[in-house]
Amino acid sequence: MATKSVAVVADLGESFGNYTIGDDAALLGLVTSSNIACGFHAGDPRIMDRAVADCVERGIELGAHPGYPDLVGFGRRLIEATEEEIRTDVLYQLGALDAFARVHGGTISHVAPHGRMGSIAQTDAKHARAITDAVAAYNRDYLVICQRGLLAEESRKRGLQVGYVFLADRGYGDDGMPVARSHPGGLIHDPELIGERCAQVVLEGTVRSVDGNVVPLGHDADVLLLHGDHPSVLANGIALRAALEKAEVRVTGLRDVLAEKAQNAQAALAR
Amino acid sequence: MATKSVAVVADLGESFGNYTIGDDAALLGLVTSSNIACGFHAGDPRIMDRAVADCVERGIELGAHPGYPDLVGFGRRLIEATEEEIRTDVLYQLGALDAFARVHGGTISHVAPHGRMGSIAQTDAKHARAITDAVAAYNRDYLVICQRGLLAEESRKRGLQVGYVFLADRGYGDDGMPVARSHPGGLIHDPELIGERCAQVVLEGTVRSVDGNVVPLGHDADVLLLHGDHPSVLANGIALRAALEKAEVRVTGLRDVLAEKAQNAQAALAR
Amino acid sequence: MATKSVAVVADLGESFGNYTIGDDAALLGLVTSSNIACGFHAGDPRIMDRAVADCVERGIELGAHPGYPDLVGFGRRLIEATEEEIRTDVLYQLGALDAFARVHGGTISHVAPHGRMGSIAQTDAKHARAITDAVAAYNRDYLVICQRGLLAEESRKRGLQVGYVFLADRGYGDDGMPVARSHPGGLIHDPELIGERCAQVVLEGTVRSVDGNVVPLGHDADVLLLHGDHPSVLANGIALRAALEKAEVRVTGLRDVLAEKAQNAQAALAR
Amino acid sequence: MATKSVAVVADLGESFGNYTIGDDAALLGLVTSSNIACGFHAGDPRIMDRAVADCVERGIELGAHPGYPDLVGFGRRLIEATEEEIRTDVLYQLGALDAFARVHGGTISHVAPHGRMGSIAQTDAKHARAITDAVAAYNRDYLVICQRGLLAEESRKRGLQVGYVFLADRGYGDDGMPVARSHPGGLIHDPELIGERCAQVVLEGTVRSVDGNVVPLGHDADVLLLHGDHPSVLANGIALRAALEKAEVRVTGLRDVLAEKAQNAQAALAR
Repeated sequence: MATKSVAVVADLGESFGNYTIGDDAALLGLVTSSNIACGFHAGDPRIMDRAVADCVERGIELGAHPGYPDLVGFGRRLIEATEEEIRTDVLYQLGALDAFARVHGGTISHVAPHGRMGSIAQTDAKHARAITDAVAAYNRDYLVICQRGLLAEESRKRGLQVGYVFLADRGYGDDGMPVARSHPGGLIHDPELIGERCAQVVLEGTVRSVDGNVVPLGHDADVLLLHGDHPSVLANGIALRAALEKAEVRVTGLRDVLAEKAQNAQAALAR
Repeated sequence: MATKSVAVVADLGESFGNYTIGDDAALLGLVTSSNIACGFHAGDPRIMDRAVADCVERGIELGAHPGYPDLVGFGRRLIEATEEEIRTDVLYQLGALDAFARVHGGTISHVAPHGRMGSIAQTDAKHARAITDAVAAYNRDYLVICQRGLLAEESRKRGLQVGYVFLADRGYGDDGMPVARSHPGGLIHDPELIGERCAQVVLEGTVRSVDGNVVPLGHDADVLLLHGDHPSVLANGIALRAALEKAEVRVTGLRDVLAEKAQNAQAALAR
Repeated sequence: MATKSVAVVADLGESFGNYTIGDDAALLGLVTSSNIACGFHAGDPRIMDRAVADCVERGIELGAHPGYPDLVGFGRRLIEATEEEIRTDVLYQLGALDAFARVHGGTISHVAPHGRMGSIAQTDAKHARAITDAVAAYNRDYLVICQRGLLAEESRKRGLQVGYVFLADRGYGDDGMPVARSHPGGLIHDPELIGERCAQVVLEGTVRSVDGNVVPLGHDADVLLLHGDHPSVLANGIALRAALEKAEVRVTGLRDVLAEKAQNAQAALAR
Repeated sequence: MATKSVAVVADLGESFGNYTIGDDAALLGLVTSSNIACGFHAGDPRIMDRAVADCVERGIELGAHPGYPDLVGFGRRLIEATEEEIRTDVLYQLGALDAFARVHGGTISHVAPHGRMGSIAQTDAKHARAITDAVAAYNRDYLVICQRGLLAEESRKRGLQVGYVFLADRGYGDDGMPVARSHPGGLIHDPELIGERCAQVVLEGTVRSVDGNVVPLGHDADVLLLHGDHPSVLANGIALRAALEKAEVRVTGLRDVLAEKAQNAQAALAR
């Protein structure tokens, strides 16, 4: 059997001006891939410049993390924008981040919509279409980081490759979807447990739900997301990497993971 | 003698959300080139999207018009930003506009810093360096629209081609520089006169100053700027185009004008 | 029978920085009352200062017109804010406008939430509570301009007086509520008709619906709203004032209208 | 000899949305007075609401801390605003903060302009006039926290009482003015030394300069400012309070300090 591989991603560059969020320096040592805020829900041109420079220097994949234009709400509040507003807001942010990628000799690898824009896009067709229209028009090589749902479907319709994400530090329901953070068990606090769950989801494709059942995730776990605002994100990241190493899961960039998956699929067909 | 040629540019896409400034539809019929606001002092992603689409459709050159992050001040107030702040703010705006150019099949041709950022860059080395560092890092093919001064010097140091602008509707001093808008004679109101002055500056390189002297501009007039907020911008534009036609000045894009100038210079050297 | 009286209100001060919306100068001659934007969806400190000064000078009632913090969306897009966010956003805006009232020797008379915040508050309890909590905590003398619905109910629960608004230039359904602007008949274009409808709703309490039926409004028409973005707002305002004069409806401030209504109610009880 | 008294103030409420700056909870236990950000350079309506509530609950004087509309620059960059822009920006912020004071049963006691707006107002007449015009128009009872300079002069011209501030953690020059933070000795790092210096400036009116000379401050030290962004602000505050207690300096609100100073001055005159 082929070795399994997985990417590890975290949101980076979410500081703003004089304000700092997250310990980017520490996260840079733990991830293969980044979701970099683009100045709408968080981030500013200096923050973006440094985050991109840091990632390029360390060979970390660059990802765009566009959000609603709502700094005071950190992009966590639904804005009933039109499809054109969402599409053009995403395009603007993709271009802005790409400017920094370009001057630092890097390439944006994927897009992961932030916060409420990202979550609503799993179930709202307008958001899913608007986001994927923007990505496909800008660069068809970009991967889209998705959960199961409309964002993945609309991505595929437009010929965009999808990387499925598993939220490393969050509880999941019997339906294989994350439960609300406020749900008892919605946030996993034990770093060891986080590591074990991630190894299991990568190797077996299953997760123990908040109701205690081992359920299939229902999609691949191509990339594991560490939330930077989890109180023990660093401990989580260290335990995660250790668990993956112990389970002999290869940790690599998302582009690699998907390429390998495609190869394996072809190999399987050829058999 | 070779026919003289000149470009005509106007600031476009300076509306914002529900707010409209300028009659872009009319200006589109009068210009060869555009300076498109990038969302900091004016413009938003929808406005940018439409301005770029309109220009691409009509073959109008796309120019980036970055400014200070000061919507309420329309980019007309000095902000004592650091060199890094100016450089990264310009980079961000270049990338954001370029996203729309890219999806509409166009290419940004030039950069013209807006308002106070643009005027201070003629005399302030920090601004001149920051802006040209951003442009050169992003794309060395971009032209920079300048008046005489440090912005032109720093552009050339970085290998960026310079297009010299003459402000079509503004009075000039004996030093060949525009006087303040509030100066008596600072704003030219007669469209015919605007047309005549522009033809003269292109053909002769001279301008009648506010003090009544015919003075050399001191640099080429590669591109003529129509201010969209002039009360009679359309009449000005029509009279300008008529005067240029009458004077047998070829009106074409700035890139063309500069290419032709380079060719003429080489031809002169060869003689 | 007592003479009927009604107030006429328009949204004022919705310009921003270099951007102008609406013909405030003309509207000032037609209204008894103002809804002044407070800097979140529109307006800035200069615009507010001048709008308040103009109203105080002419004896026009000052109204606060708070909205979502969404300049690019002009407050017309729902933001899924928390109750605390809405309450504190409204409080902030009330205080900011009140500063200008204070320095110009005026007093804020009423509050009319803007755009989507205003419309959703008719049916969403969270919004209705948050807005009226802010108003009641700030100043129990403020009137609240409402349509029928939760905002009116929650206002009364907190002891706030309600002024019912009739949208002068909008079509109404058989349920006595305005239909969407995009509905055929949603926007009334004939100034004479607008005048007649308003006179009728004040005198008879009825309106001819978009389906052609004469239906009761279901609440008083204490104040008639002229939309500043209606293409012929001035013609509408002039025709409205003429129709009210012809119908011998007294046009006065909303506070007067409500005081008179209260007096009439007491007189009726005493009989 | 009368006991000396002094106030202790810190900037509070400088967080924004999801972003936290400063340890307000700890500072609340150390100060008599607050400078609360008003939403332009920092702070948002929720942050302001909580900061005001906390101060009112603990009997801490409320101060308004208005700044430039420059969140990304944290109000630390000069904006070349007009006098009208500065005046109306300050008025807007005073009103906004006052709304929260009002609903929590508190009263704003003083105004301390923030960052670059505050420092430039010591030497720039336009800023000094604009700020004091706003304060005087809004409420003549408000005190103004100043260093020596034009802001103090213009305050007095308008009948506003001035509270002189000594920057507790900063080095001073031979001229009795703070030196730049970047100057060697510009930032005092030893909490004990901070305490001693403050006791000395209150009791003797002198300070040891960065050049080693004991120099007169040149004005009273009515209020001592603890910078919330000093790396050891809590240790500094604790040492400061201990040193003042040891020196038998009474620590009380700024309004008290000024009242006592006025009384002592009258008593002196009467002798």
